Amino acid sequence: MRSATDHVAQALALVEPLGVERVPLASALGRALAEPVRAAADAPPFRTTSMDGYAVRSNEGAPGLWEVSADVPAGIAPAPLAAGTVARVMTGAPMPDGADAVVPVEDTDRGVDRVEIHRWPAAGAFVREAGEDLHRGDEVLGGARLLRAVDLAASAAAGAPDVSVVRRPRVGVLITGDEVRPPGSALEPGQIFDASSTTLPALVEEWGGECVGVRVVGDTDQAVVDALDSLEADLLITAGGVSAGAYDVVKSALVPHGVWFGPVAMQPGKPQGLGLWRGVPIVCMPGNPVSVVATFLVVVAPMMREMLRLPSPAVGTAVAGVGWRCPPGRAQLMPVRFEGVRVVPATAGGSGSHLIGSLAQAEAFAVIAADVSEVLPGDTVGLMGITP
Amino acid sequence: MRSATDHVAQALALVEPLGVERVPLASALGRALAEPVRAAADAPPFRTTSMDGYAVRSNEGAPGLWEVSADVPAGIAPAPLAAGTVARVMTGAPMPDGADAVVPVEDTDRGVDRVEIHRWPAAGAFVREAGEDLHRGDEVLGGARLLRAVDLAASAAAGAPDVSVVRRPRVGVLITGDEVRPPGSALEPGQIFDASSTTLPALVEEWGGECVGVRVVGDTDQAVVDALDSLEADLLITAGGVSAGAYDVVKSALVPHGVWFGPVAMQPGKPQGLGLWRGVPIVCMPGNPVSVVATFLVVVAPMMREMLRLPSPAVGTAVAGVGWRCPPGRAQLMPVRFEGVRVVPATAGGSGSHLIGSLAQAEAFAVIAADVSEVLPGDTVGLMGITP
Repeated sequence: MRSATDHVAQALALVEPLGVERVPLASALGRALAEPVRAAADAPPFRTTSMDGYAVRSNEGAPGLWEVSADVPAGIAPAPLAAGTVARVMTGAPMPDGADAVVPVEDTDRGVDRVEIHRWPAAGAFVREAGEDLHRGDEVLGGARLLRAVDLAASAAAGAPDVSVVRRPRVGVLITGDEVRPPGSALEPGQIFDASSTTLPALVEEWGGECVGVRVVGDTDQAVVDALDSLEADLLITAGGVSAGAYDVVKSALVPHGVWFGPVAMQPGKPQGLGLWRGVPIVCMPGNPVSVVATFLVVVAPMMREMLRLPSPAVGTAVAGVGWRCPPGRAQLMPVRFEGVRVVPATAGGSGSHLIGSLAQAEAFAVIAADVSEVLPGDTVGLMGITP
Repeated sequence: MRSATDHVAQALALVEPLGVERVPLASALGRALAEPVRAAADAPPFRTTSMDGYAVRSNEGAPGLWEVSADVPAGIAPAPLAAGTVARVMTGAPMPDGADAVVPVEDTDRGVDRVEIHRWPAAGAFVREAGEDLHRGDEVLGGARLLRAVDLAASAAAGAPDVSVVRRPRVGVLITGDEVRPPGSALEPGQIFDASSTTLPALVEEWGGECVGVRVVGDTDQAVVDALDSLEADLLITAGGVSAGAYDVVKSALVPHGVWFGPVAMQPGKPQGLGLWRGVPIVCMPGNPVSVVATFLVVVAPMMREMLRLPSPAVGTAVAGVGWRCPPGRAQLMPVRFEGVRVVPATAGGSGSHLIGSLAQAEAFAVIAADVSEVLPGDTVGLMGITP
């Protein structure tokens, strides 16, 4: 049986980093940064005041009544400050040449033509020098990341109107099974609801990809082949039809094309397929909902992160709050929730591949190595995030 | 000076939970769940097998050669199992009436008309009872939350084709300032880049709202009034023009309409405005990028969460890895990053409202109470997330 680690390594070997494109900041939220962003200008771009008040020459004077020789709102280039006078300045306005300190408006009588200054400032008070925050060309934003609002804020403030991001992986999804019906259907005997048509596109979107199509087909080889050929994608994912049964259509359709099928030492998600479909990487997973999520997180998410030029999802650690059994010889993926700082199985039922309710309760997946047969309360376990 | 806590309470008093709408699962990712989702049918809907293999009457026999009287793929309703025979079953297929255990295919010679069974199963082996996972009407998904892919997976698997979600808050954004220019512009003396036009719509989207428009206007009262009147919104946010200066246009335009302006005891984000604009809640924040982000997280995010029927963002705790100074009498919001398990200021410059680079470095904001004048290494500090 192939180990989960080997299987993921094989999967990663099938994909390559995708190309780069420039997008305006307004459509960059959630995209993968490809190149550092550098400041287009000094920030602040000029000497400025951090307070509303009066710009003065600090070596000139003392508290008392002063002539206001100019009024400097933000956005204009002021004349030099006349000797023996002060200039009214608004937060963010350029400092007049010659002025080197600001008296906050709270320390004055707020005069317009003349102002009574109650407290005289030291040189540099409330003045920000040009380039104090950033110099032109400084890196504002770097390192592989999915862009957050605060990253876009830094880019915009530094004057970059667009950013280089990695193209989104285009992912095609194929669901097989004569027995699956859309949620909302009245089920006939033997039929079940199709969860994968909902789950896989949503997972693809959460992890930074674009789902280019979802096909749901019955159990014939030709339907599988036609559906795969109709998807223009960087990565293909199938759900259902991969185990050892006589009607495992994905397997029967793809084995002749050289796609590998076999057991992977993980629970859930043991029967899997992996390979290339006409040159496009393809991951074939069992059809039940918990297997779909577990296989996506373990196998597909790292592939998508590689395509997006991002590091593989981090596996952290947590301490188990209760004990549970693990399947012999298979890595276990257990949906867990937090009780205080410890994790416990999300539902009483454990990691069985059919436990629908555990998905909605889960805050993370615990990852237990294949050679562990039982988790004891207080044991440290691996912890994998459900979202990036 | 109004405390940050009082200010947030005033802000929350201005908003109410928004209405509810049903959306199909395919467009529910990231929406706020409004009502529990219940199972539309038992899951599994019928007695089924969890393995490919042969369904048997466990009390009938022993290893040996058996007649295969039926072939049961997934998706059909099988006939009862004839006495003295077995039926070939595929994972997920209904169990024939009368059969109560499954011999996995690995324990047989995989025969089609007749099969050699090597190991005889106990009653119930590899059989899943109808409703073992969920009963019709059981709650699959409940509790206020922003819907994740795994939540949609549970809904779909339980047969719910759509979900009740809270309507997205429609948020209008107004940026003021004669001095602001779009990123990418060549700056004239006195001009700065407009970051808020990028930052605020992206924050609104991250926190589950919909930005209905961004207006950027110069410093005239009429332009502010006209711009606000052009935005059809549940919540209005302005950036810039709120401090004590002569040209603080948002303040001068809105004070006559009863909007409160004054200092709030927080750093950054001290000068603020809050009230109603023709009945619509309005939050007025200073224009610089770090103040915009801090005010959004402290004031606007809780308002949006209230509208979305979600609890206010949690404030956790962390341990400071280094010490830093805090402003007297004001709550401090310090962009921080993690060094191991401890937090340190995201950049050397601290929490000054102009520190563009700190936003991109930040992994969270530390929150320091107003009565703390200095954080020491090892102190416990409040910790606020940058994203929901």
